[in-house]
Amino acid sequence: MATSEIVVMKFGGTSVAEPDDIRRAARRIVAARQAGKQVVAVLSARGKTTDELVSMAREVSDTPAAREMDMLLSTGERISCALCAMAIHDLGHNAISLTGSQAGIVTDSSHTRARILDVRADRIRTALTEDRIVLVAGFQGVSGDSRDVTTLGRGGSDTTAVAIAAALGAEVCEIYTDVRGVFSADPRLVEDARLLPIVSFEEMLEMAASGARVLQLRSVEYARNHEIRMHCRSSFEDGTGTLVVSEQDTMERPSVTAVTHAEEARVTLAGVRDEPGIAGRVFRALSEANVNVDMIIQNEPVSVEQKADLSFTVEADHLRDASEALGGLGISERLETDERVGKVSVVGAGMRSHPGVAAKVFETLGQNGINIEMIATSPIKISCVIDAERIPDAVKVLHEAFELGSEAVRREDPTGTHRPVVPPEDEDRSTVEAA
Amino acid sequence: MATSEIVVMKFGGTSVAEPDDIRRAARRIVAARQAGKQVVAVLSARGKTTDELVSMAREVSDTPAAREMDMLLSTGERISCALCAMAIHDLGHNAISLTGSQAGIVTDSSHTRARILDVRADRIRTALTEDRIVLVAGFQGVSGDSRDVTTLGRGGSDTTAVAIAAALGAEVCEIYTDVRGVFSADPRLVEDARLLPIVSFEEMLEMAASGARVLQLRSVEYARNHEIRMHCRSSFEDGTGTLVVSEQDTMERPSVTAVTHAEEARVTLAGVRDEPGIAGRVFRALSEANVNVDMIIQNEPVSVEQKADLSFTVEADHLRDASEALGGLGISERLETDERVGKVSVVGAGMRSHPGVAAKVFETLGQNGINIEMIATSPIKISCVIDAERIPDAVKVLHEAFELGSEAVRREDPTGTHRPVVPPEDEDRSTVEAA
Repeated sequence: MATSEIVVMKFGGTSVAEPDDIRRAARRIVAARQAGKQVVAVLSARGKTTDELVSMAREVSDTPAAREMDMLLSTGERISCALCAMAIHDLGHNAISLTGSQAGIVTDSSHTRARILDVRADRIRTALTEDRIVLVAGFQGVSGDSRDVTTLGRGGSDTTAVAIAAALGAEVCEIYTDVRGVFSADPRLVEDARLLPIVSFEEMLEMAASGARVLQLRSVEYARNHEIRMHCRSSFEDGTGTLVVSEQDTMERPSVTAVTHAEEARVTLAGVRDEPGIAGRVFRALSEANVNVDMIIQNEPVSVEQKADLSFTVEADHLRDASEALGGLGISERLETDERVGKVSVVGAGMRSHPGVAAKVFETLGQNGINIEMIATSPIKISCVIDAERIPDAVKVLHEAFELGSEAVRREDPTGTHRPVVPPEDEDRSTVEAA
Repeated sequence: MATSEIVVMKFGGTSVAEPDDIRRAARRIVAARQAGKQVVAVLSARGKTTDELVSMAREVSDTPAAREMDMLLSTGERISCALCAMAIHDLGHNAISLTGSQAGIVTDSSHTRARILDVRADRIRTALTEDRIVLVAGFQGVSGDSRDVTTLGRGGSDTTAVAIAAALGAEVCEIYTDVRGVFSADPRLVEDARLLPIVSFEEMLEMAASGARVLQLRSVEYARNHEIRMHCRSSFEDGTGTLVVSEQDTMERPSVTAVTHAEEARVTLAGVRDEPGIAGRVFRALSEANVNVDMIIQNEPVSVEQKADLSFTVEADHLRDASEALGGLGISERLETDERVGKVSVVGAGMRSHPGVAAKVFETLGQNGINIEMIATSPIKISCVIDAERIPDAVKVLHEAFELGSEAVRREDPTGTHRPVVPPEDEDRSTVEAA
C-alpha cells in the first residue's frame, strides 16, 4: 500500500449538495481506490450551507466576531465529510473523516482568512497505510499558536486540497466542480467556446484573476509554487477536463489561450496631489480595510497644479469599504465611484513571443464600437475596462478574432495538437455509475 | 478573578433555538458575569438541528457509521456556541466558544454513546483567568486513544455541564430548559401540580427514570457522585426553579414527593425453562443490542413443567431491537410484545419511613378501576404498569390521594415548608431583559 500512488480529489459545494450528489462523489472516490490509488478527498460545505450559516450569524449579530465565525462556518465541511464517509462505507470501503485540525492543516491566526503555515499530515498518512480512504474538511485549519479553529477564506477548499497534495507528494490534485473544465471563454457567452485540455499555471493565474471562476487564484498559486498538477473536472459527467501544469510541460502555444471577463467596481480619486508617498497611503489604507484592488491606473499630471487622477478597480462587494477607507484620507479633491464596469481580458503564455496581440485586441474592440476606458497588461495578459453592458459583445468578438473556437481550431490546426476534448453529451458514464 | 465563584449554566435546545433565544441566553450569561461570577455555559444544539442532521444521515445511508454520526452530530452544538459567543460580544463581554475536545472532555471511544473518562479543563481555566466567558459545546468529547470526535448520547449536554462543574469545583450547575423546574406531576395532566423547590438526588434519579423529562438520569447520577448541586430553571422566565441536592441538605419530607408517568413497550417470554443462567442469557443479549430494560418481572413456576413467564418493559423505540435480540435465543415457547403500556410511579425519599405507601397506591388505583399489570418497587419508588389509556386518570388520582397539589400543601402545611414557589405568570423579567 505505502508505495501506491496518492491522489487528492476535491469536491465543491454543488458536487455534494444533495444525498444523490454525495453518493455520486462517493462512487468516484471508490472508483479511484479500486483503480489502485490511495485516495484523500477534500470536501466543501454542501450547496448553500455556508451562506445559511453566514445568515444565521447576521441574524444574531451585526458584527460577528471573526473567531466565532470560523467556529461556525467550519461545521459545514465537517457535515459533508461525515455524510460522504457514510456513503463510502455503504459501498464496502473503509473511510474516515477528519476536520482540518485533525488533518494537520496548521494556519496563522487570521480568522476568516487564515494562511496555511504547515501541513502535518501524519494522521492522514497513518490512515492511508491502514487502507482507509481519508476525507478532509476543506476550507479550515487550526491556528498553530492558539489552537483555535480557523477558516481560509475564499477558495479555501481548493487550497486545502492542493496543500495536502503537496504534503503527501501526490502526483495530481483533482478538482471536481459543476463545469467540465476550463474553457477558451465563458460558454454561456460564446457558443463554440472550447474546453482547454491543458493550460499553464501562469495562464491559469491570469485567467482566475480576470474572471474565470473554475479554479481559485490562491490554490493555483499554491500549486505552482509546489509544482502540483491540478486536474479540473466535472463531478457530474466523465470527460478529460483541463490539466493545469508547469509551462515546460505544455506544448507550443498559440498567442492567445482564452478570453475572460468580469464585472467590477471602479473608484477614481480626482485631483490628487502629485507627491511621493500618496499612492502608498492610498493602497495601505485599502489594504488595511481588506480591499483587494485589481487594476490601478494613474495618469501623469500635465498641468502646473501638479494634480493627478488615480483610478482603480475593486470587487463590487468591496466598493463601500474602499470608499470609507479613502474618505478620511483627504488627499483628493473628489472621490468618484462607478458601481459596475466591465473587464475583458485575453490571456495566453504564447503572447510573449507573438507581438501585436495588444494591437489586435484594441483594434477588434474599436472596430466593434466598444470604448476602452482603462488598460492593464502583464506579459501574458491584456485587460481592458469597458462598459459592463458590452461584455458579451467584447468576449465574442475577441474570441473570434483570435480564432479560439472549437470550429476555428479544427480548421486551423490539422495536426490535432489542439483537438477539442469536449466529451459528447451522451457519453457513457457507466464506469463511475457501476462503481 | 481566580477566587470568584464559578457557575456552570447549561442551555437546552429550545433555549437557543432562534436568534431571539440565543440573545436571551446571552443576556442571562452576561447577567451572571456582571453579578461577579466566572461563567462557563454549556449549550445544546439549536431546536431541531440534531433531528435534521440525523435525517440527513439517513438520507445518505441506511446504516450510518457511528464514528461519522459523531462527526456529523457534534456540529450542532458548535453552531450554538459560536452564535451565542457573537451575541455575548455584542453585549460588550469577551466570550470564547470551545468544542468538547477543546474543552478537554475526554471520553472512551464508544461512538454515539461515549462515557466521560476525564475533564482536562486547563483551557477553560485559562480562559476564565483571562476574564472570558467560556461557551462549551455540549454532548461531545474526544476519545482519549484515537482522538476522534465522540458524542455522549441522550442527555449528553446535561452530563457535559455537570462534569465541567465537578472539574472546576463549581458550586452549582444551572440547567436552563423550557419548563420552570421539577413538578409534583406533569402539569399538563394535573392542574394544581406543584413546582418542587428542592428534591434529593435519589428522588430525582427515580423521577428521571420513571418519566420526568426535565433532567436526564445520567447527569443526575454524575451530579450525585460528585456532589454537584443542580439547579433546574426556565430560560424564558425568572423564577426559583428546583434545586437538586444531597439528601442531608433536604428538609424532613412527606412520604411522597411526586407522581411520574411514562409510556413503554412490554415484552413477555412465555414458557421459559426454569434453569440457572436463562435470565442472564436474556439480559446479556438485550445489553449487547443496546436495549435499556426498565422493569423486569418473573413469576415462579408452579407447574410440574418448570416453565416460567418473564416480562420486562423497554422504551418503545427499542422494542424491535429487543424482539430481534431474543428471537434467536430459542429459550421460550412464545415471544409476546405489547407496543404501548402505561407506567405510573410515586416517588419520595420519605417513603422509607412511612409504611403503607404501597398499599395506598394499589388501593387508590383499584378504587378507580385501574388494573395493575406489573409492579416494581425501590426503597423510594413504587411503579405500576397499567393500560396506557388510563395514565391521565392514574396520575390525577394518585396526586390527589397523596395530597401533592399546591392547594393541598397550602392547606396542610401551615409552616410554609412546602410553600409553592410557582412565580406569577406576569412576573417582572426586567432583571434579565435589561442585562
